Amino acid sequence: MTDRQSKPLYYPDYLRLDSLLACQQMESARMGSPAHDEMLFIVVHQAYELWFKQILWELDSVRETLSTPVVEERELGKTLKNLERVVAIQRVLIQQIDVLETMTPLDFLDFRDYLIPASGFQSVQFRMIENRLGLRPEDRLTFGRAKYSNRLEESDRALVESIENEPSIFDLVDNWLSRTPFISFGGFDFWSAYSTAVRSMLEHDRKAIVENPTLSADHKQRQVDGLEQTKAQFEAITDASKYEALRSDGGFRLGHDSFKAALLISLYRDEPILHIPFRLLSLLIDIDENFSTWRYRHALMVLRMLGSKIGTGGSSGQDYLHEVAHHNKVFKDLNRVSTFLIPRGRLPELPEDVVRSMGFRLST
Amino acid sequence: MTDRQSKPLYYPDYLRLDSLLACQQMESARMGSPAHDEMLFIVVHQAYELWFKQILWELDSVRETLSTPVVEERELGKTLKNLERVVAIQRVLIQQIDVLETMTPLDFLDFRDYLIPASGFQSVQFRMIENRLGLRPEDRLTFGRAKYSNRLEESDRALVESIENEPSIFDLVDNWLSRTPFISFGGFDFWSAYSTAVRSMLEHDRKAIVENPTLSADHKQRQVDGLEQTKAQFEAITDASKYEALRSDGGFRLGHDSFKAALLISLYRDEPILHIPFRLLSLLIDIDENFSTWRYRHALMVLRMLGSKIGTGGSSGQDYLHEVAHHNKVFKDLNRVSTFLIPRGRLPELPEDVVRSMGFRLST
Amino acid sequence: MTDRQSKPLYYPDYLRLDSLLACQQMESARMGSPAHDEMLFIVVHQAYELWFKQILWELDSVRETLSTPVVEERELGKTLKNLERVVAIQRVLIQQIDVLETMTPLDFLDFRDYLIPASGFQSVQFRMIENRLGLRPEDRLTFGRAKYSNRLEESDRALVESIENEPSIFDLVDNWLSRTPFISFGGFDFWSAYSTAVRSMLEHDRKAIVENPTLSADHKQRQVDGLEQTKAQFEAITDASKYEALRSDGGFRLGHDSFKAALLISLYRDEPILHIPFRLLSLLIDIDENFSTWRYRHALMVLRMLGSKIGTGGSSGQDYLHEVAHHNKVFKDLNRVSTFLIPRGRLPELPEDVVRSMGFRLST
Amino acid sequence: MTDRQSKPLYYPDYLRLDSLLACQQMESARMGSPAHDEMLFIVVHQAYELWFKQILWELDSVRETLSTPVVEERELGKTLKNLERVVAIQRVLIQQIDVLETMTPLDFLDFRDYLIPASGFQSVQFRMIENRLGLRPEDRLTFGRAKYSNRLEESDRALVESIENEPSIFDLVDNWLSRTPFISFGGFDFWSAYSTAVRSMLEHDRKAIVENPTLSADHKQRQVDGLEQTKAQFEAITDASKYEALRSDGGFRLGHDSFKAALLISLYRDEPILHIPFRLLSLLIDIDENFSTWRYRHALMVLRMLGSKIGTGGSSGQDYLHEVAHHNKVFKDLNRVSTFLIPRGRLPELPEDVVRSMGFRLST
Repeated sequence: MTDRQSKPLYYPDYLRLDSLLACQQMESARMGSPAHDEMLFIVVHQAYELWFKQILWELDSVRETLSTPVVEERELGKTLKNLERVVAIQRVLIQQIDVLETMTPLDFLDFRDYLIPASGFQSVQFRMIENRLGLRPEDRLTFGRAKYSNRLEESDRALVESIENEPSIFDLVDNWLSRTPFISFGGFDFWSAYSTAVRSMLEHDRKAIVENPTLSADHKQRQVDGLEQTKAQFEAITDASKYEALRSDGGFRLGHDSFKAALLISLYRDEPILHIPFRLLSLLIDIDENFSTWRYRHALMVLRMLGSKIGTGGSSGQDYLHEVAHHNKVFKDLNRVSTFLIPRGRLPELPEDVVRSMGFRLST
Repeated sequence: MTDRQSKPLYYPDYLRLDSLLACQQMESARMGSPAHDEMLFIVVHQAYELWFKQILWELDSVRETLSTPVVEERELGKTLKNLERVVAIQRVLIQQIDVLETMTPLDFLDFRDYLIPASGFQSVQFRMIENRLGLRPEDRLTFGRAKYSNRLEESDRALVESIENEPSIFDLVDNWLSRTPFISFGGFDFWSAYSTAVRSMLEHDRKAIVENPTLSADHKQRQVDGLEQTKAQFEAITDASKYEALRSDGGFRLGHDSFKAALLISLYRDEPILHIPFRLLSLLIDIDENFSTWRYRHALMVLRMLGSKIGTGGSSGQDYLHEVAHHNKVFKDLNRVSTFLIPRGRLPELPEDVVRSMGFRLST
Repeated sequence: MTDRQSKPLYYPDYLRLDSLLACQQMESARMGSPAHDEMLFIVVHQAYELWFKQILWELDSVRETLSTPVVEERELGKTLKNLERVVAIQRVLIQQIDVLETMTPLDFLDFRDYLIPASGFQSVQFRMIENRLGLRPEDRLTFGRAKYSNRLEESDRALVESIENEPSIFDLVDNWLSRTPFISFGGFDFWSAYSTAVRSMLEHDRKAIVENPTLSADHKQRQVDGLEQTKAQFEAITDASKYEALRSDGGFRLGHDSFKAALLISLYRDEPILHIPFRLLSLLIDIDENFSTWRYRHALMVLRMLGSKIGTGGSSGQDYLHEVAHHNKVFKDLNRVSTFLIPRGRLPELPEDVVRSMGFRLST
Repeated sequence: MTDRQSKPLYYPDYLRLDSLLACQQMESARMGSPAHDEMLFIVVHQAYELWFKQILWELDSVRETLSTPVVEERELGKTLKNLERVVAIQRVLIQQIDVLETMTPLDFLDFRDYLIPASGFQSVQFRMIENRLGLRPEDRLTFGRAKYSNRLEESDRALVESIENEPSIFDLVDNWLSRTPFISFGGFDFWSAYSTAVRSMLEHDRKAIVENPTLSADHKQRQVDGLEQTKAQFEAITDASKYEALRSDGGFRLGHDSFKAALLISLYRDEPILHIPFRLLSLLIDIDENFSTWRYRHALMVLRMLGSKIGTGGSSGQDYLHEVAHHNKVFKDLNRVSTFLIPRGRLPELPEDVVRSMGFRLST
């Protein structure tokens, strides 16, 4: 490319199409019996990898922004754009499954054997995305007790695992939340008014269970137990030591101050100053949901393709695939926030000076 | 509408818009505190019900076609159109969840209490669809041991339950499959050649598990056990009494001849005469997958909306909702067929007269 | 419904399903030859009308917010939610076309004649949406010189036309923009620095045309003429009287101050205080684009269904349908803003006190 | 890759990820001012090119099938799968525009200048797809009188233009249609019965126009003229020499026998033997529609990005882009078929021996 300087930029050169379009090499052809559909299999997975690269690119930008000691409001706008783009890309990832499903089970068998023991588990970039977001080894649903990275080659494994120790998006969001000035409102006793409202809501829910004529005694008991747990979680929110106890049990992952901040942002999301923070939290939930849906659709597709046959990488884990879709979410605490929301009408009114402090300062 | 005869047809009259657009009555408004987002809640659920009506309309047409003693090839084309339409509608159902998610958890709380104890569990038409497809009471994942229909009013319950006893799409497909002439090929000993091929494939898979260095002994054992089960299922396919034994255990639901027919259709799907039958089976899997995805997206949305709060109908079952997505599928046997597919190359070649009999007879 | 008070709320009652699901009356059935696909035709159009009602509901909320003399930042957040929802609904509208396309041309002919002379042109709610957004009678591409509302019955026509005279979303946005404090920055001479940058950009573009070896002389001339027009438009932006001259020619629709405000919001969109305003402008473009795409897809579908046959309402206007998709956009001026954007690097730097005035005031 | 033989297949090697993920080289970075969004711009265009490769792969398979002197029914099933896959891929192409639209106009300006004079017009593969489908040079809407290939480098131009002279999908379909045995039905006088039905339908339409009170005289005239043209086209269908006259005028592109075959397939699509042929024709229309929609969405996006600025390749053709979406369709004749469809009820009934000849011959 030494002549790039001298000649006008040409679209196929700019996109390195010579190189890009030489990367589709069918194993079935190399083995002497070319299978038409292997091309699709390669192209769709390469398209996935291109998009994974772009997602990592956006997540790196998010990390850079959130890593500064003081996150400028101005920069948060950039983070929103990064995350919105990830969400738009995820929609394409999901759509691509429809394309892969144009390959029928029989078509797949035409080249499946040539791919053994390669496996989608070996997508280094996807593991990097998971780790960047903040999926910890201990959070993962394991498959046959093997570590998620054990199928990778040495250098890839080292790369993927090195990220485990770097601050993830989860960590950075946790950190950012803990530093927001929204946790308390000066002298205003928000928490006692709010606690009263939540307790009354939970009591209301308890009655709804107990008085439901369609539930068996057994089932009522299980629901009431669940409610008691919710209540204990709520009590923990106003008590740092209780919170820490639950947190080490796995009940929460966010720090105490961060969870409180997330709750306040969700409760007072209508205030202009909380617009961007609320949108940021919503986008993190969207990203979790979209990967969950993508994994789920993937599980349905594998089941359709293989029945209970084993995969090319030696797995026969349709149940695993279905369960992992739901299990490997990162921002579960943000869903947990919804548990403690109360209707706007019962929300303690903010003192006027607090409200004013949450508006914009216009230069007029 | 007595003057419909005399005046020219007018679009708003044709669609009964006066009546249709009067059906959106907000409980929050009736209670004196109108909540903006309740309108969305009503409209989205009404749009669901309109589409459910259309799905039932298509399924009734399918039932009518498949209920004739001899299903004309010509009529099967109509069935494909019915099912393709159901699939297209399901895509809209899934897309509509994105609209509902524009409502935030806090917005929902503005009117949630007014809806108690109404619940989406009370959608009569959706229960009818499930029953029409062939979801039996015993197949359903129950919620708190209550029968799925116990939340319905008397007449609705009667309506829904009456369908349990009518032939479902599953039954009719089972029946149609059992009558196809594709189960055997004259004197050709298909099954012994095929059995050899499948056994060798399964042995091949067993080796792949045992020699996989990344699996723990424990995990290998579980996978090998799974494989043994698959093998037993396969042995059952060529042996009617073994098949019936597994079937009464819940291992299969289709009749023996029907399962064999589905397998042959999938193996020889490239033959023109099997084009329509194969497409029909594929569409049934699509429909199962799409309802599964829709339920899953719904579960994610409920979790986001309520956290671990209880629903308006008294349920607190996020785990239930996630699990039911996967559990309540009707055509699981059609996925099971994929387990026993073998590569085209190892497929017993059909005798020429059989092949000829599977082509079209042109009038030239 | 007098007993609504006394009995617990029931989902089918809440949604008025008795009434809603009685609105599907097929003309073909009334005429004695029921056509299976007419049900789909009715249901899809009724689903459209339900969504149109919801869109009007959201637009009314937008109008209410923007009609207050001083629009609170806090309220603008609500407007964003309204518009985001409209965009999510439009995606469903577009998706629904796929469902309608499962009806083949021949299927449509089974009942087409019964619908004459009813026509989609008679959707009162869609006309209301267009008028609410701000599509003026003079902006419309007319079809055979008839007024858009001439196919409506008297009272519907009156309703639709009455909206022409009420402030539209366009008017309210115009008004709101003209009142933003972002048009000028105190004493800072933004416009002269900016003008220099734009002029140099346009000169740069002119050279790119003239030196392009692949364009014919003729074509170069047309492009250079276009550029001159752009330049004249730009000169008008800094000169109120030139602007008004172009505006009465139809070159612009927004008021002078509003256009300047929209331009500044787009140029300095990274400032936190402009986050919400920029998003609002983007959503208006999204809405225009989505209706445009929807109309376009509709035109493709009509062509497929009818070829060059005439429609049930007597129109044979495939070209009209394709052109109107592009023509009937409301917020064209917002696309025009892009013409005058310059790269961030060449953007005049804002004085520090201006930047500070665009941040948030935190209460810490 | 000499050791591919000896070591087990590894997913990242199989997909050539080292090479693939090295193809994203930002011009802005090379110029010393990296622009975050250029990565997206590259990735999205590379994803397009991967999918274009896959589309060409499928179209080559279609060409191979349709090039045999006698197209086996069995092989047509393969062609359907190829075309269904193209349609599924096109949905992804359209979805990708949403991702690109997460880049705002200002973000684009950060690197736009570095790309001059490269242009999407230089996508060799997209031109190949157009030519493979059968878009002839004379069919193309030209931009500034330059040939569509004039922006390509010598060898690329040669490649693209060489395809102009090879049989396109259009040609092969034309050929296949002309050879179908469905054009006539033995001695049955289909055409006279059918002509009577069409003439009466057209007369019916003429009255609907003339008696429409909402149309101006002028407009009525234009519509009646259109109808006369349709009538002339129809007369041509039963008269080979009239047809050829219209065809050389550009009124039709398919050969006479082919057009008649397409019409018969559409009219008698319910016959089992016509199931596959009808589906094939439908998929060709789908492909035309999807590229049309994709081009249209692309035009909307360019307008949003650039306003009336010129593109990086020196074009300022928003109108061109909108118009080309509709203009550059290949299978317009298949839409034209719809013009001459008549309701099933008025369709001449086929003699019983003809019907029987259109069924399947089962081996029972």
